[in-house]
Amino acid sequence: MRLIPVLLLIFGISVYAQQKTAYDYVDPMIGTQRMGHVYPGATVPFGMVQLSPDTDTIPYSVDGRYNPDVYKYCAGYQYGDKTIVGFSHTHFSGTGHSDLGDFLIMPTQGPLQLNPGIASNPKSGYRSGFSHATEMARPGYYKVDLADHDITAEMTASERVGVHRYTFHKAGLSHIILDLMHGIYNYDDKNIWTFVQVKDDYTVVGYRQTKGWARTRLVYFAMQFSKPIKNYGCVNYDKREVYRGFWGKFDQEHNFPELAGKKLRVYFDFDMAQDEALEIQVALSAVGTEGAMANLGGETSGKNFDEIMQEAKASWDKELNKITMTGTEEDKVNFYTALYHTLLSPIIYQDIDGKYRGLDQNIHQARGFKNYTIFSLWDTYRALHPLFNIIQPQRNRDMIRSMLAHYNQSAMQMLPVWSHYANENWCMIGYHSVSVIADAIIKDEYRGDANAALDACVKTARNRKYEGLAYYMDLGFIPEDKSSSSVSKVLEYAYDDWCIMKMAEKLGRLDIQQEFGKRSGNFRNVFDPTTGFMRPKMSDGKFKKEFDPMDTHGQGFIEGNAWNYSLYVPHDVPGLIQLLGNKGRFEQYLDQLFGKDLPDKYFEKTEDITREGIIGNYVHGNEPSHHVAYLYNWTDSPWKTQQKVRMILKNQYRNGPDGLSGNDDCGQMSAWYLFSSIGFYPVCPGSDQYMLGSPLVESATIRLENGNIFSVKTINQAPDNVYVKSITWKGFPWKERYITHEMIKNGGELVFEMSAKP
Amino acid sequence: MRLIPVLLLIFGISVYAQQKTAYDYVDPMIGTQRMGHVYPGATVPFGMVQLSPDTDTIPYSVDGRYNPDVYKYCAGYQYGDKTIVGFSHTHFSGTGHSDLGDFLIMPTQGPLQLNPGIASNPKSGYRSGFSHATEMARPGYYKVDLADHDITAEMTASERVGVHRYTFHKAGLSHIILDLMHGIYNYDDKNIWTFVQVKDDYTVVGYRQTKGWARTRLVYFAMQFSKPIKNYGCVNYDKREVYRGFWGKFDQEHNFPELAGKKLRVYFDFDMAQDEALEIQVALSAVGTEGAMANLGGETSGKNFDEIMQEAKASWDKELNKITMTGTEEDKVNFYTALYHTLLSPIIYQDIDGKYRGLDQNIHQARGFKNYTIFSLWDTYRALHPLFNIIQPQRNRDMIRSMLAHYNQSAMQMLPVWSHYANENWCMIGYHSVSVIADAIIKDEYRGDANAALDACVKTARNRKYEGLAYYMDLGFIPEDKSSSSVSKVLEYAYDDWCIMKMAEKLGRLDIQQEFGKRSGNFRNVFDPTTGFMRPKMSDGKFKKEFDPMDTHGQGFIEGNAWNYSLYVPHDVPGLIQLLGNKGRFEQYLDQLFGKDLPDKYFEKTEDITREGIIGNYVHGNEPSHHVAYLYNWTDSPWKTQQKVRMILKNQYRNGPDGLSGNDDCGQMSAWYLFSSIGFYPVCPGSDQYMLGSPLVESATIRLENGNIFSVKTINQAPDNVYVKSITWKGFPWKERYITHEMIKNGGELVFEMSAKP
Repeated sequence: MRLIPVLLLIFGISVYAQQKTAYDYVDPMIGTQRMGHVYPGATVPFGMVQLSPDTDTIPYSVDGRYNPDVYKYCAGYQYGDKTIVGFSHTHFSGTGHSDLGDFLIMPTQGPLQLNPGIASNPKSGYRSGFSHATEMARPGYYKVDLADHDITAEMTASERVGVHRYTFHKAGLSHIILDLMHGIYNYDDKNIWTFVQVKDDYTVVGYRQTKGWARTRLVYFAMQFSKPIKNYGCVNYDKREVYRGFWGKFDQEHNFPELAGKKLRVYFDFDMAQDEALEIQVALSAVGTEGAMANLGGETSGKNFDEIMQEAKASWDKELNKITMTGTEEDKVNFYTALYHTLLSPIIYQDIDGKYRGLDQNIHQARGFKNYTIFSLWDTYRALHPLFNIIQPQRNRDMIRSMLAHYNQSAMQMLPVWSHYANENWCMIGYHSVSVIADAIIKDEYRGDANAALDACVKTARNRKYEGLAYYMDLGFIPEDKSSSSVSKVLEYAYDDWCIMKMAEKLGRLDIQQEFGKRSGNFRNVFDPTTGFMRPKMSDGKFKKEFDPMDTHGQGFIEGNAWNYSLYVPHDVPGLIQLLGNKGRFEQYLDQLFGKDLPDKYFEKTEDITREGIIGNYVHGNEPSHHVAYLYNWTDSPWKTQQKVRMILKNQYRNGPDGLSGNDDCGQMSAWYLFSSIGFYPVCPGSDQYMLGSPLVESATIRLENGNIFSVKTINQAPDNVYVKSITWKGFPWKERYITHEMIKNGGELVFEMSAKP
Repeated sequence: MRLIPVLLLIFGISVYAQQKTAYDYVDPMIGTQRMGHVYPGATVPFGMVQLSPDTDTIPYSVDGRYNPDVYKYCAGYQYGDKTIVGFSHTHFSGTGHSDLGDFLIMPTQGPLQLNPGIASNPKSGYRSGFSHATEMARPGYYKVDLADHDITAEMTASERVGVHRYTFHKAGLSHIILDLMHGIYNYDDKNIWTFVQVKDDYTVVGYRQTKGWARTRLVYFAMQFSKPIKNYGCVNYDKREVYRGFWGKFDQEHNFPELAGKKLRVYFDFDMAQDEALEIQVALSAVGTEGAMANLGGETSGKNFDEIMQEAKASWDKELNKITMTGTEEDKVNFYTALYHTLLSPIIYQDIDGKYRGLDQNIHQARGFKNYTIFSLWDTYRALHPLFNIIQPQRNRDMIRSMLAHYNQSAMQMLPVWSHYANENWCMIGYHSVSVIADAIIKDEYRGDANAALDACVKTARNRKYEGLAYYMDLGFIPEDKSSSSVSKVLEYAYDDWCIMKMAEKLGRLDIQQEFGKRSGNFRNVFDPTTGFMRPKMSDGKFKKEFDPMDTHGQGFIEGNAWNYSLYVPHDVPGLIQLLGNKGRFEQYLDQLFGKDLPDKYFEKTEDITREGIIGNYVHGNEPSHHVAYLYNWTDSPWKTQQKVRMILKNQYRNGPDGLSGNDDCGQMSAWYLFSSIGFYPVCPGSDQYMLGSPLVESATIRLENGNIFSVKTINQAPDNVYVKSITWKGFPWKERYITHEMIKNGGELVFEMSAKP
């Protein structure tokens, strides 16, 4: 392993000095193995560029059939792999579906190979073997040795620019490959078009347009090398595309500066001296190559790798230091890595001048807000956006403004469901933008026109074309034979409707309050008192006959079985308790959920999670149960909440590449960790309450944007002291099972006295 | 045939009244049969929209092989066809290559059919039979009865908006089909992507992105109906494209407002009463759907069909009335139709706010000029742009600014060769932007930075990557074995270089003047004194052995044989005469050219022209000989110029659909007609002289933009009086064989006395 002197200087001070900072505790490798689906590469908080190694290129289908392995590569990287294909500039963090992987760059030496080659024989292509021993991942920095080419690769980033530094340890003719065919969730026909212009000896611009998860996606780039290109060339792997007007007129494969086609691989040659470093800055834009050039000019041009890396570190320090946590070294790694993971998405999606591509594919100017994209709302409304209301309220406001811009550009007249890169991919269910907006309005964190926001929510919630909504509005439930996952939909719509009702109540919009107040009770219409579960109904109004409350498939639910999903009434837990009988029965139900092991035959059909992601029949790796551990607060045994939360914190989040038990889901899993480890959780976003649990930290201090400080302190904290004996707030006893947002916002100290006994 | 009352009113006054105007004489059907390649539909002068019927959909290839019939449909319409597929919004005028045909609209009644059907059985699809008897074509107006659906279709246009009026003669459910798969120069894979949003009950927006002749082309539209859509739907003929996230979630085929894919056909249903008319306004933009909406709002919104048609007529009147010509009724039809054809391209290529898509695919703001596209420069530098310097100097300035913008956006750092829609298709040879720029600068018509324009010309002419230019610069000729059509290239480069030399001379740029003055003599390097022809050389510097001066293929030339092309030294006719021997030998050569019939075996290989397009071995249907008839002015028999010109005017341009003998080539053929029929021709653009011929008109009055009036009058004009006996200029005898641009610009009267004898 080689060490670059500058790195020694930077990391030498921070990592090895006695005072480790938040930054030092973050381990981006956590979750890169198996199901975490996070990437280890370089990015800055909410950065548009995620420059990260891709360890394999998995075709979407083999022989016309879906290739299930494609799922492993949602973030492009799998810790178990032995080769790196190259470094691409866009990655989701923790998703359960894939896309992106734009503009793969790979440095090589020796004979030019333009195909990636195969993992079992990396020398068959441009890819390289690598060893984790040479790998270093830090917020905003990634490093690895590419063994087959004897090149050290380093990555850093600013918000819109990915920066590469390749140190060639052997002198000689060297290649930088720009593979425009590469992508994540890739298939033969995914590239709609790609376009490259070599502007001068240092500068290359272009774009990639894809279909796939995002149906119509365009990303532009501007790439600048630190030394002049000696020669360059291109192979178009789809010969049909070369318009015959070019035939014979130009040699398009060598030093021809205007390239376009669906299947392009481009290379750039440089003469490198021994141990000479080549730096490449790659700016992205969703607007155009001029936008990308301006982003490059505004963010990184004229700076070298080390300067940009230090700026990246500073931006991470700023965000990570908003919470100071004390606890065990192991917990610190989990805590700050979770904090890191919550700051990776949504991402900034506009040029430095505020221009962005809208859902209508037009270019818009963001006025008075920053535009964001990657809204995995079915996941993130639960805890990530509520967390942002505490530690990133300004960004959360901008995210809401971005959602409203999406709404205004939507022919469907709907707020985002799962949107990325000027596209709606309609993934998962519900209309949970509503929850995010309500949470900010109810907590007085939103600064925009609340009535306009409410109107968008109402219009969204009344869209009769959206999944089963017409039935829901007409019948109060959704027949499973008309729209699948009907129970999950009814339960989530009912919760979202409660959010709308709360906003209407606050804004004095009585008619809306009544309409949606009524709708919020629709969860009752899918409760089956004979089985004691939520259960799908059919068009005839009767419950579906075949019904297995342990199964997650074809039972009227999605990513959760009836056992888990029947508890999804976050806005009316007392009403749910009434349905289930009484507090005692409710507690029994929860005990059974956590106690009863899910048989293997059901686990095999459970998505997105590892075996460790399950406690009994409680599935932490999927989101619908994220509030469940806190429901004991409505029973006479709130100590069971404390016990379960600490159990989940300990078992489901661990140090090491395999430390995440399921997809991090754009930070939702990590947001659960942060809330719970500090001692409370937003069971029902849209209310101003956080239910208390059992803090894992010794202390946590949150520096709010308004200048106030909210802190949690524990007395007698220990791994076994998971029970809360007493609580004080600003020195006075606190008897409630919740705290409010106002308490946090105004600052103060919440002290938990811990105990080994309930 | 049904007549619409309003039409009777408008055309009744103009067509049947005694005072017929220029507008009345234009017959857009001329040239729609066989090789003219013009379209009969509705457009305004230089308008971005050309809304015209397409009579067939010809696939680019059949069974993987090129389908030669595709060539017939360069303008979408062939007079001999019996069916109309529909009405699309973009068409080239007179080109020898095809593209465009965007956004085909077709009204139907009865069962919905989304495929176009076949010509031999129109009822097999949505197309319809039609009769020319029901057809009416006027500048800015087109009408036809769609027999199979009993619908009268009418078209008009503003600069950026095509306007349809469909009168349904039977009551009932009616369909408007928007076929996004349709296109000209179409092949299975031509659509890169299409995108449609239904914004409300009246409004639809979207775009079409194609590859083809333009490698990366994007056109946006905004469509507005005069009555609300009842229902709409779509079929995506490429099922693979439907992202699975949509599966089951939405019925995308019915009333779903956000569509995207490669193979979409959309329909819109309306309940129509008997004889009720549906109007549709379709605005185009190269920027975005918002740009298209703004174009619609700014140009046509709130106006009805008749109002827009009258505005279109007014804009035609304004341009056509710039020249008033007297002569025979037949000649008037030819003359004004030629004038009409010269005003169809280049087209305006920017939104009403001045935004346009540049060659770099970025959106640019045109500042201080209007941006134009469709530059068929190998054709149009000869007479069309010189004509613009007289009757459209402001537009010609803007066209030059557009060329310079292209240059600035070009990674190749070249001025346009053949460019359209933010693309360079590199069709044909030379760098004749240089000629257009020089002609405007030399004639003092250019108002921009002439030195910057010259720099762009020089950079273009020094591009070593461009077709054989490196050889040309190094050797003074191009070896045919290195770059084909080498002699044509050398001759045209030499002419273009003379243009650069003249600009440099005027601007006092001595080094450039010397360099390009030297280059302008390179025509001498390909003259073979042993055969007396220009002849290709090989890499060894020797003439190519196999050589047939009658053949056009594989002989070192393009669109012309050695007989024709050897005369291509427009900038140094005395030098050419010297090469050929002397004036007498030169005259003999010309006589032989016009006298010696081209044997059939050679004609079969001649492109783009009908048999009538040839006089002897002189090919008028292709451009390289367009100056040739005027070359007798350098001999002692200028009367032969007069004779030949009148012969060509008579034989090559006729009334009727088959009236054009070859492709109109974006107006070049028509510009030849206009110049020659008025009595002079720009043999060498870039000089300020026009060579005199023999006017066909009785008189012609040109109203210049500077307010001056230049007129030509003839005495004793008659079909047989083709010879010029004497000329006076402002009442004084004029003895030169040319006139100058300054004379025209300052105004005055040129009188030709005609005679039946030389």
